[in-house]
Amino acid sequence: MADLAAVLVTGAGMTKFAKSTRSLRDLAGEAVRDAVADAGLEMGDLQAAYVGNGVAGLVTGQEMIRGQVMLRPLGIEGIPIFNVENACASASSALHLGWQAVAAGMHDIVLCLGAEKLSHEDKAVGMAAIGTAVDIEAQAEMAERLGGGGADAGKRSFFMDIYAGMARAYMAHSGATREHFAGVVVKNQGNGARNPRAQYGAQLTVEDVLTSREIVDPLTLLMCSPISDGAAAVVLMSEDAARRAGARGPRIRASVVVSGNQHDKSDPSAGSAGRAAAAAYAQAGLGPEDLDCAEVHDASAPAELIVYEQLGLAPPGGGPELLASGRTELGGDLPVNTSGGLLSKGHPIGATGLAQVCEATWQLRGQAGARQVDGARVALAQNGGGWLEEDSAAMSVHILSAD
Amino acid sequence: MADLAAVLVTGAGMTKFAKSTRSLRDLAGEAVRDAVADAGLEMGDLQAAYVGNGVAGLVTGQEMIRGQVMLRPLGIEGIPIFNVENACASASSALHLGWQAVAAGMHDIVLCLGAEKLSHEDKAVGMAAIGTAVDIEAQAEMAERLGGGGADAGKRSFFMDIYAGMARAYMAHSGATREHFAGVVVKNQGNGARNPRAQYGAQLTVEDVLTSREIVDPLTLLMCSPISDGAAAVVLMSEDAARRAGARGPRIRASVVVSGNQHDKSDPSAGSAGRAAAAAYAQAGLGPEDLDCAEVHDASAPAELIVYEQLGLAPPGGGPELLASGRTELGGDLPVNTSGGLLSKGHPIGATGLAQVCEATWQLRGQAGARQVDGARVALAQNGGGWLEEDSAAMSVHILSAD
Repeated sequence: MADLAAVLVTGAGMTKFAKSTRSLRDLAGEAVRDAVADAGLEMGDLQAAYVGNGVAGLVTGQEMIRGQVMLRPLGIEGIPIFNVENACASASSALHLGWQAVAAGMHDIVLCLGAEKLSHEDKAVGMAAIGTAVDIEAQAEMAERLGGGGADAGKRSFFMDIYAGMARAYMAHSGATREHFAGVVVKNQGNGARNPRAQYGAQLTVEDVLTSREIVDPLTLLMCSPISDGAAAVVLMSEDAARRAGARGPRIRASVVVSGNQHDKSDPSAGSAGRAAAAAYAQAGLGPEDLDCAEVHDASAPAELIVYEQLGLAPPGGGPELLASGRTELGGDLPVNTSGGLLSKGHPIGATGLAQVCEATWQLRGQAGARQVDGARVALAQNGGGWLEEDSAAMSVHILSAD
Repeated sequence: MADLAAVLVTGAGMTKFAKSTRSLRDLAGEAVRDAVADAGLEMGDLQAAYVGNGVAGLVTGQEMIRGQVMLRPLGIEGIPIFNVENACASASSALHLGWQAVAAGMHDIVLCLGAEKLSHEDKAVGMAAIGTAVDIEAQAEMAERLGGGGADAGKRSFFMDIYAGMARAYMAHSGATREHFAGVVVKNQGNGARNPRAQYGAQLTVEDVLTSREIVDPLTLLMCSPISDGAAAVVLMSEDAARRAGARGPRIRASVVVSGNQHDKSDPSAGSAGRAAAAAYAQAGLGPEDLDCAEVHDASAPAELIVYEQLGLAPPGGGPELLASGRTELGGDLPVNTSGGLLSKGHPIGATGLAQVCEATWQLRGQAGARQVDGARVALAQNGGGWLEEDSAAMSVHILSAD
C-alpha cells in the first residue's frame, strides 16, 4: 500500500496570469523553472512529469504530445511524460497522478505542470474551445434546457449559461441575491489586488459589480472569470527524497479526483464537490473546521457560495450568510480565494488547479505577502472541470498541511 | 512501496478495427462492454478509468472530457476518470497509469480504454491530426531535414516521411533491403488474415508489397499502417480483488513508459524503445529469451526490424536476419505481431497500445484462435507515440505472463 501522507510540495512556480502574446511553451517554461529552482533542484533531477492542458489542440494546433513539446526546450526529456486532460480540472488531475506515483514509491521527484493559452487573435477560437468541456453532441439540447439563450461562441462562453442556471437554482435554494454574488467578486478582486500574479484585482463596490455588463441573468461581466493565459507548476518529492535533498514543503494530506452525476439529487449541496471533499477529509483525517484557508473554483461568482456548502464550510443554504459574516475575507478565520480566485487571478483552464496549489503552498510557508493568512497550517484547493448532465465532469479536492 | 506484480488483466475487449461510420462513443462502448463482461463484472464495479485518445479534438470536435463523454452512456460515472494522451502511445500510457493505481493499492478494479476515430469524410482532417504528434512549430524544418518531400497533409501522413528517413538509416546500418521490409508486411498481413478483428489481412507476396504504390522511398503503401477507427479496453484488478471475484487473467510483470531523446546516439538500436525494454525486463525479472510472443509498433514495416534490435530479440544489425530466419512467424519460436500488427490489424492511434495488450492477453489465455502461439506464457507489447528531434515522444513496454 502506498504511503499517502509522504508526499511533499517542495517547489511551486507560476506565471502572472494575463491575456498574453507569450507562447504556451514560454509560459510553461517560466512556471517550471521557478518551481524546480524553488525546490533547489535541477531539471535533470525530475523523474517523471504530468502535464495538464485543456485546449491547445484547438487554440495552438498542438493536439498531441503537448507536454513533451513544452518541456523539451527546458532539457526535460527521456523521463516519462503524461499528458492529462480533465477540462478546467486538468492541472489538479495531473497533480493527482503525480502524487499517486510518488505515494506509490514509483518515483521520488516528479513535476506537475498545468499550462493554458486561451487567448487568440480570434476571440471565438478560445470561446469555442472552452465550449468543448461539455458533450458537444448535447450542447444545443443543454442550452435549451438551461434557458440561457444557447451557446453563442464568440460572444460568451457556453459555460456562463450553465453557471447562470446553477445560480438561479441556488438563489431559490438559499435565498442568495445578486448582491451576494457581487460580494464574492468584491472580496476576490480585493484579494487579487494583493497578488502580483493576478490578472485583475481592484477595490470594487457591490454597485460596480452589479452595473457591469450583463452576460446572462443573473451574471454580470465581473461575476465571470476572464479569458486568461498562464502556467503553474509544482515539484513533488517523497518525504525521504526531500530529507536527503534538504527540501521542505507542505505535505499533501489528501488528493481526490472524482467525476460527476452520482449523488443524491435532492441535496443541492451534494454532487461531485461534496463527494470529493468528503473523501479528502477522510483521507486527511481532517474536517472543514481544521482549514485555515481555501482556494475554490469560482469560475462564476455564485459557484463560490455553492462550494462553501459542498465543502461543509457552511450548512445547506448557509452560503450567503457565511459570505456576509466576513469570515471568508482576508482577516476572517477562513479566508477563501486569497489569490483572487478564478474571478480576479484569472482562469487559464488547464493551469488553474495547480495555481490553487501554488497559492496554498505559499500560504502554508508564510510566503503569501500582502495576502498572507496569519499562521496558516491547513489549506484546501477545490477544482472542477467540464459539465455533463447536471454535474462537473471532473472534480478534485486537495488538502495540504504545513507539516 | 507498491506491489508491482499484483496487477492482473482480468478482462479484454476490442472492436474490429476498420474505417467506420460508427461514432467514437459507439466504438468505445463495445470495447468496454466486452472487457467488463469478460472480467465477469458490471459497470458499477469499476473504481476508476484511464482513457487514451489522440485526436478527437481535431477529428470529432470533442477536445475535452473525451473519456467522460464516451463512458457516461454506459453508466460509468462518479468514479475518477482521467483523459490521457501520448499520441500513438496514448492507450499504453493510460494502461500504465491504471496499473500504477492498482499496484499502489489506491484502487482494486480499474478500466483502461483506448479509442480513436481517425477516418473523416475529409481525409485531410485525419492526416492533419496525425501530423500534430510532432512539434508543430518544427514540422517544416523537420521535413526538410528528412528529405522526404515535406508534410503533405491530405495525401499522406507526415509520419511516413519520418519513417522513410528511419528506414534509410536502418538500411545503411543493417543491410536491410526493401525485400526485408516487404517480408514484414507479408508476415503481418498473413497473421491479420487469421484475426477477425483486423482491418486487413491477406496472403501476399513480396512482389505484391513492392509493387504497391510508392508513398515515400523506400516505403510502399502496404508498408504503411492504414487509417483506422477502433477501440480496445482492459479491466485491471488487484490480485486480491481478482481472487475474491474468481476472476483470472495474465499478470502484468512490467509496465514502463519513457520519453525519447536521452540515449547513446552512436547506437542505432538504442533510443527510447531500448531504454523502455531494459527497464521492463529489469522490472519483470525476465529477458528477451523468456518471451513467447510480442506485439510491436510496426507503424511502418521497417520499424518492426528496428524494434527487434531495440528489444534485444536480435543483435545490432541483426533485424533482417531474424526476420529471414522465420522465427518471428507464426510457428516460429518467437512470433511477432500475431494480431497482424499495426500494418494489418490497423492503427487507430489512441487505441493501439491496448489492442496490443488485448492480443497478449488472448495469447496467454489460449484464446487467440487461428493465430494461437502454442503454450505462450510470456508476452511483450511495445508501443511508441509521437516524434521529437530524433526519437519517439513517448515509448511504452509492457510484459505480461500467464500467471
